[in-house]
Amino acid sequence: MPPLTGVEVAKHNRSDDCWVIVHGRAYDVTEFLPEHPGGTKIILKYAGKDATEEFDPIHPPDTLEKYLPKSKHLGPVDMSTVVQEKAEESPEEKERMKRIQEMPLLEQCYNLLDFEAVARRVMKKTAWGYYSSAADDEITLRENHSAFHRIWFRPRILVDVEKVDFSTTMLGTPCSIPFYVTATALGKLGHVEGEVVLTRSAHKHNVIQMIPTLASCAFDEIVDAAGPGQVQWLQLYVNKDRAITKRIVQHAEKRGCKGLFITVDAPQLGRREKDMRTKFTEQGSNVQSGQATDTSQGAARAISSFIDPSLSWADIPWFKSITKMPIVLKGVQRVEDVVKAVEAGVQGVVLSNHGGRQLEFARSAIEVLAETMPVLRELGLEDKIEIYIDGGIRRATDILKALCLGARAVGIGRPFLYAMSAYGQDGVDRAMQLLKDEMEMGMRLIGARTVSELNASMVDARSLFNHGSPPADSLTHAVYDPLVSPAQRLAVTGERPEKAKL
Amino acid sequence: MPPLTGVEVAKHNRSDDCWVIVHGRAYDVTEFLPEHPGGTKIILKYAGKDATEEFDPIHPPDTLEKYLPKSKHLGPVDMSTVVQEKAEESPEEKERMKRIQEMPLLEQCYNLLDFEAVARRVMKKTAWGYYSSAADDEITLRENHSAFHRIWFRPRILVDVEKVDFSTTMLGTPCSIPFYVTATALGKLGHVEGEVVLTRSAHKHNVIQMIPTLASCAFDEIVDAAGPGQVQWLQLYVNKDRAITKRIVQHAEKRGCKGLFITVDAPQLGRREKDMRTKFTEQGSNVQSGQATDTSQGAARAISSFIDPSLSWADIPWFKSITKMPIVLKGVQRVEDVVKAVEAGVQGVVLSNHGGRQLEFARSAIEVLAETMPVLRELGLEDKIEIYIDGGIRRATDILKALCLGARAVGIGRPFLYAMSAYGQDGVDRAMQLLKDEMEMGMRLIGARTVSELNASMVDARSLFNHGSPPADSLTHAVYDPLVSPAQRLAVTGERPEKAKL
Amino acid sequence: MPPLTGVEVAKHNRSDDCWVIVHGRAYDVTEFLPEHPGGTKIILKYAGKDATEEFDPIHPPDTLEKYLPKSKHLGPVDMSTVVQEKAEESPEEKERMKRIQEMPLLEQCYNLLDFEAVARRVMKKTAWGYYSSAADDEITLRENHSAFHRIWFRPRILVDVEKVDFSTTMLGTPCSIPFYVTATALGKLGHVEGEVVLTRSAHKHNVIQMIPTLASCAFDEIVDAAGPGQVQWLQLYVNKDRAITKRIVQHAEKRGCKGLFITVDAPQLGRREKDMRTKFTEQGSNVQSGQATDTSQGAARAISSFIDPSLSWADIPWFKSITKMPIVLKGVQRVEDVVKAVEAGVQGVVLSNHGGRQLEFARSAIEVLAETMPVLRELGLEDKIEIYIDGGIRRATDILKALCLGARAVGIGRPFLYAMSAYGQDGVDRAMQLLKDEMEMGMRLIGARTVSELNASMVDARSLFNHGSPPADSLTHAVYDPLVSPAQRLAVTGERPEKAKL
Amino acid sequence: MPPLTGVEVAKHNRSDDCWVIVHGRAYDVTEFLPEHPGGTKIILKYAGKDATEEFDPIHPPDTLEKYLPKSKHLGPVDMSTVVQEKAEESPEEKERMKRIQEMPLLEQCYNLLDFEAVARRVMKKTAWGYYSSAADDEITLRENHSAFHRIWFRPRILVDVEKVDFSTTMLGTPCSIPFYVTATALGKLGHVEGEVVLTRSAHKHNVIQMIPTLASCAFDEIVDAAGPGQVQWLQLYVNKDRAITKRIVQHAEKRGCKGLFITVDAPQLGRREKDMRTKFTEQGSNVQSGQATDTSQGAARAISSFIDPSLSWADIPWFKSITKMPIVLKGVQRVEDVVKAVEAGVQGVVLSNHGGRQLEFARSAIEVLAETMPVLRELGLEDKIEIYIDGGIRRATDILKALCLGARAVGIGRPFLYAMSAYGQDGVDRAMQLLKDEMEMGMRLIGARTVSELNASMVDARSLFNHGSPPADSLTHAVYDPLVSPAQRLAVTGERPEKAKL
Repeated sequence: MPPLTGVEVAKHNRSDDCWVIVHGRAYDVTEFLPEHPGGTKIILKYAGKDATEEFDPIHPPDTLEKYLPKSKHLGPVDMSTVVQEKAEESPEEKERMKRIQEMPLLEQCYNLLDFEAVARRVMKKTAWGYYSSAADDEITLRENHSAFHRIWFRPRILVDVEKVDFSTTMLGTPCSIPFYVTATALGKLGHVEGEVVLTRSAHKHNVIQMIPTLASCAFDEIVDAAGPGQVQWLQLYVNKDRAITKRIVQHAEKRGCKGLFITVDAPQLGRREKDMRTKFTEQGSNVQSGQATDTSQGAARAISSFIDPSLSWADIPWFKSITKMPIVLKGVQRVEDVVKAVEAGVQGVVLSNHGGRQLEFARSAIEVLAETMPVLRELGLEDKIEIYIDGGIRRATDILKALCLGARAVGIGRPFLYAMSAYGQDGVDRAMQLLKDEMEMGMRLIGARTVSELNASMVDARSLFNHGSPPADSLTHAVYDPLVSPAQRLAVTGERPEKAKL
Repeated sequence: MPPLTGVEVAKHNRSDDCWVIVHGRAYDVTEFLPEHPGGTKIILKYAGKDATEEFDPIHPPDTLEKYLPKSKHLGPVDMSTVVQEKAEESPEEKERMKRIQEMPLLEQCYNLLDFEAVARRVMKKTAWGYYSSAADDEITLRENHSAFHRIWFRPRILVDVEKVDFSTTMLGTPCSIPFYVTATALGKLGHVEGEVVLTRSAHKHNVIQMIPTLASCAFDEIVDAAGPGQVQWLQLYVNKDRAITKRIVQHAEKRGCKGLFITVDAPQLGRREKDMRTKFTEQGSNVQSGQATDTSQGAARAISSFIDPSLSWADIPWFKSITKMPIVLKGVQRVEDVVKAVEAGVQGVVLSNHGGRQLEFARSAIEVLAETMPVLRELGLEDKIEIYIDGGIRRATDILKALCLGARAVGIGRPFLYAMSAYGQDGVDRAMQLLKDEMEMGMRLIGARTVSELNASMVDARSLFNHGSPPADSLTHAVYDPLVSPAQRLAVTGERPEKAKL
Repeated sequence: MPPLTGVEVAKHNRSDDCWVIVHGRAYDVTEFLPEHPGGTKIILKYAGKDATEEFDPIHPPDTLEKYLPKSKHLGPVDMSTVVQEKAEESPEEKERMKRIQEMPLLEQCYNLLDFEAVARRVMKKTAWGYYSSAADDEITLRENHSAFHRIWFRPRILVDVEKVDFSTTMLGTPCSIPFYVTATALGKLGHVEGEVVLTRSAHKHNVIQMIPTLASCAFDEIVDAAGPGQVQWLQLYVNKDRAITKRIVQHAEKRGCKGLFITVDAPQLGRREKDMRTKFTEQGSNVQSGQATDTSQGAARAISSFIDPSLSWADIPWFKSITKMPIVLKGVQRVEDVVKAVEAGVQGVVLSNHGGRQLEFARSAIEVLAETMPVLRELGLEDKIEIYIDGGIRRATDILKALCLGARAVGIGRPFLYAMSAYGQDGVDRAMQLLKDEMEMGMRLIGARTVSELNASMVDARSLFNHGSPPADSLTHAVYDPLVSPAQRLAVTGERPEKAKL
Repeated sequence: MPPLTGVEVAKHNRSDDCWVIVHGRAYDVTEFLPEHPGGTKIILKYAGKDATEEFDPIHPPDTLEKYLPKSKHLGPVDMSTVVQEKAEESPEEKERMKRIQEMPLLEQCYNLLDFEAVARRVMKKTAWGYYSSAADDEITLRENHSAFHRIWFRPRILVDVEKVDFSTTMLGTPCSIPFYVTATALGKLGHVEGEVVLTRSAHKHNVIQMIPTLASCAFDEIVDAAGPGQVQWLQLYVNKDRAITKRIVQHAEKRGCKGLFITVDAPQLGRREKDMRTKFTEQGSNVQSGQATDTSQGAARAISSFIDPSLSWADIPWFKSITKMPIVLKGVQRVEDVVKAVEAGVQGVVLSNHGGRQLEFARSAIEVLAETMPVLRELGLEDKIEIYIDGGIRRATDILKALCLGARAVGIGRPFLYAMSAYGQDGVDRAMQLLKDEMEMGMRLIGARTVSELNASMVDARSLFNHGSPPADSLTHAVYDPLVSPAQRLAVTGERPEKAKL
């Protein structure tokens, strides 16, 4: 059969007859339309056309193979016959290109926040919107980092710190530094190669990578990218169809994954309004459209359909029955549930509020950690489980505080995405090296030679539970119309010197 | 008798002979002038003229029928003979019209604060001034919302939350979600139809509406606008003349109202300086005018004369004698008075500081709630009375916090006014739907399947009583002249690079 | 003897032969020069010239009569022969004149802060500098007001507040409202008539005025300006020469003063850097001048020489021996000294940090009050002494908080100066009326019918002692050079989009 | 041998054959290149050229004599034959020169912060970067000063303070005021004469100077600059080669130093990102350069190689064996280590976090002091050791707070550097005089006649441990993309009125 032509495909451009081209092949998605997790509208935008560019960052390459029945695979298209819509470069995009040309040199990034500053300037607005957004007013997002600022050090002096060693083990795996690359979705939004970039840097620096369920790369691609002896974990969103879940878990174990991190803080994916606002494109009038709040709502919502909100403690034994990987619950948020996790016999928990992307005003992981460890010690359970935290870590001092308070290690996500989005592989490598440099310095200055020497007497965390002044409330601040003093009267010239700003 | 002519009416344009036209009919208000709650000046501005446009948002349509003796009703006017003053559109009004044209689409409003942002841009300055203003420095206004930010969640994980049900009952009425539309005055300032817009949305979403004493619509209009089975409550400002009060209450009960909410925090209506400043129009010189502080002071003051400052606990038995509706005291502000309310045998209290519009530095309702419930539990009274709160609620997380701390439900007022003012009916509908969406998400993420599962262990409210950093003090900040470092000396060019700003 | 001529006077224009003209009369001040409290330099500027304009706001009119020996009084000058230097109006002064023309109408001032806003615009820079400045970084100045914001109300509802009465008595004198006009220096800097303006308003509103030692008007002028039955107090800076002090005190008693307020917080007058910076005029080079820190330092320093730093508890019996007026210590700053004051047998104390003008980081009076009353009650001393506070009071809610916490009344100073400086007599009258209006409202809303019903259960002052976030540190903020993210590189055009600000 | 010519020297301009000229003499530094603490790159920039200007502020003049073998000293150069590169004055430098011309007069500096404001404007960017920078986000830098703002005074009144005496003794030496000039590196960055300027002012004001190991001036120069009877201390960075350390210590003792302050908080010198960013000069592309994080990193890193990270408590006896000077540990940061210091038999400790330049989130010295003294008193050790603090002191009120809490005296560093950099000797003299003036005032106003009368009852430090709101987090703030309200739609004109800022 000869390849299809663009003209042929272009005829099928309606919701009741909808073809799209992806990577040079045509697919009939008519029946799939209503089931598309990202909504119908986004597909219809490409009905009869080439959707590859939009498709790529959101879907692993094997998605259509896996999820679309073979009968809907229509075969290759002669791409020379497909009209390539030359998207007129928008003024906004031109400015972005200029900013990319003027990017700072990589060596001018001296800390993890610098990568974020650069990424914000050079990323596409929608990609930045997906990575950087969080729940509601993004107060939790910022609390995650600022909570660390309520902890201060009590360093020891006159300790021989010529040699400091901050290596540790996690779930039995030795690592060079107490952090791991935590799972974050849609890596190709930031870099054309996606998550494998992180895989390579993790290998270079001997840190563990957690592979996300919602990666842009296929799972096997990410595993294949690993170097010899490199350890990876699997982050799991539990699918309603447990057979799919079982297949994913057992495949991961077969491919060598050394830990199963079950996400427990996302029975429903959070609304991230910045992401939604970023994605919004004006199309139509106000008439009858405002009531529908379930329209396409940014990248975050597009990927949420596979998650089972009925997941509960009762499911844990089943997980233990299908895998020998250590099981870690990711997203625990209060000490009562840590104790339950011990009782359920899992190997670890990640205290986390999902980077502030789920429940607004969920406490920071570092605060939950400070609540948890004294209780575990009182119950004699502190050695029965490994406690990880993630969220807001930007400096080695943050890692040190977590370890002093009893964490085994911390997960870091967005900072590596930003480094990757701005500078690719080199960026991630440098970000990890900067953390190592900071860590060596921090160990020396706090007076600890090994991670085992870090303890609770080295920090003053008494203010940690003080929530008097949470991070600024941007929207409320924006809408408050501040009181003004009496204005000058209209002068003869008709100018009013102090005019209230709208 | 033939209709009056504009020329005839125009002759009566003095304080000792004052006619006005409203809705095509003339009225002799000469004797009424000194009694007008809104002051004499505002009527005299329309002496001999058509006052309809000014009259409408401030008065229910049956006002003149009810309060002006029939003998003063002068009959219809031939409106074709009345000179219509073509108000030159001010530059300010032209800019507002432009802003209205450029309003965001309704679907771009993702939360309740977005409606406020839009309303601020598109409302008339005086209407915005009346709705948004509050007492003194408006610190209480903002404290009401920011108090919620001192409460953080302790969510439960691994709870099967596939189905979440946040319906509840209030005073025996089942509702779809634990909020009601609380009473707010002068709905026509924001929308030409007034409070009935809220009635329709309340019906659509199965929530209860509290009908305000000071509505722009007539009470019966609002009741008539209700759908089948829709429940409404009556908010009552108690009139000095108890016969009037009795008539109002018994009429409401007859018309089917299911709850009587007696306002107890407003023996005198608050001064709202922004409202006053907004309304100020320059008219005359400084001579001899500054001493009179009782001049027309914004919409708020205009409506305050009907309220009886002598209302006291001694009046409660009388209310119980005139109605079978459940009685709720609205505006309770400390636990001692909640206990008194139980003793007085009322069915509920609304903890409230009147949206920050009455006593500046009255604590937020959520803080009073956190003070109240432990005491009620200690006294075994927690089931003897229903506790509502209002003030500052903008997110479902705020509702969840209130319910965790023991409230039965919350009242929401201004946000619906803003949604109505900006987008009319569609706006209010969407605002309610957004709250429902947020509520469903919030229930899932906090790990509660029903409102009865929400409890105090799910929040950390220890910082709630910490008043270290109240919201910004705008006026004080505006008048403080910050210290400056030594300035550069006058350069040769005569330019002073750092000039203190006035 | 014929009047002197300007030419004759002008010859005496050197430090060893220095005449000046004041109010049309010439004086030989050669010998007085080194003793002038305000320094030599300021007099030499007028050597041989007319100094009246500079002299007037700083000195009571009887100063030269009192302090310069008669032999130095040279008699009248024919002013028509004196060259009037027509001061070229500076651009700054022209702008100020324009601002005065555009002043808001008095009725647009809705609260005490509004007067401050207007005064800041229309006062001479040096006068504003003297009134508004305070010690060091002016953190105490602002703490005085913001401390009130850490106190919140617990209002009672359903109290019959139809009639509220906030009159009280102070040192036995009945007053209409619990504040008095406290002593502030140099009233003529703000208004040409000086302190008598305050006298007249105090009379009109039936409040007590405290007469300052350092008034611009002569003491007797101020007493003479009082209306029938008007009560005044004397504020006293104790002179090293006790005979002078005795004369002042006994004269005041004879003239009818009803209270002696001895200032105890000013053994040395504070440095107020804004005042100094305001007064600075460039005159000369950097050479050899920087070391001398004792040069003319603003109005505050000019008046400080009469104060005795050796004043101590041992002096109190002597004061009791020379007057029958009740004695009040003004400037007490800790509970231990309140107890001492009771033991010393004085009738009252004013808790005060001198409006933040003396010791930076002295606590606010309201905080000292909250520390004091529980101790007095524990010792059974609460009725043995009257406790006043001053500093930072701007709203009736501030007065209510002070009374709830146990103060008999509060002193208010700067706000009346600002009202006077901006609008003269009318301004002060309106300021007092606004406070009365606010007070009536506040009494109603807090649920108190008389000042005796105000008590500690009506406030929550638990956060008052929390000094976590003091007011902004302007100078430190101004000099801190905030960290910046990596800058964009130099683009081809040579423009650097993000340039660090100096 | 005739002097070398510039042409001859210029031939040796490669890394494998590298000569430089310093102070008119040539040196062969080829072999030394890899050992240079400041890195190779900075020397190669001057290969074959005159490096004097770059060399001077960073190195004491005897550096080459001491550290470069005589065989590498090539002898004098005929400087008339050396091409002087006329550095084109950059626009930035031109602006700085203009700012210098417009500097405020010295007498316009009224406090220590004023010098910092002026220095920031007139110093070279790199010099300012070195002096003002601190660790990581510079939160500790600012905490050092703002911690003092959480302490408030409880002054005594009616104390005879005519005579106040704030002299004291430190390590047995009488001084005029309880501060000393603490050690700061690289004085010539700020002033061409370097540390001897501070020596002269210290003598004039009778305060002790601590001589830094890393001075720009040679140690002996600084000692030689001392006046008769002037007391100096030695600050010591301990070299890995203890023979060098011994030589330094014993030389200092021989030259008359009266105290040995061993720095114990700097086993590795901190990374100061502002310093690094300031020093960065674009040179080359992004390729392969970003990974190397150990390149030249500002002045701070250049001087760090001489410090021994293995220094420990075990070394203290050795120090006691080599000197009779009192030994003080500088940089102690928790009470446990103060107790250890007593046990180790040293004479004092300086509580310090190294001006915020080492471990970010190390607590302020004043907070550690407040933790320390009650413990020492409980253990009966308060008289066994002298406690000093440094960091953040800018006002005499800061000194008073430290003394009230139990410190013997405080060290002040940066403020004198800023005064010196802006105004030279006169600046430092005035800075010290201002502190004395403030101190006299402060003693009077707090009611203390001598330093021995200052005690803990005179302060309220309860909020000191409250870390709820640390200083602003500049980088995080800079990268956070605040939420925005819905934007207006594109108007017909194509203008978007509210555009999100990048």
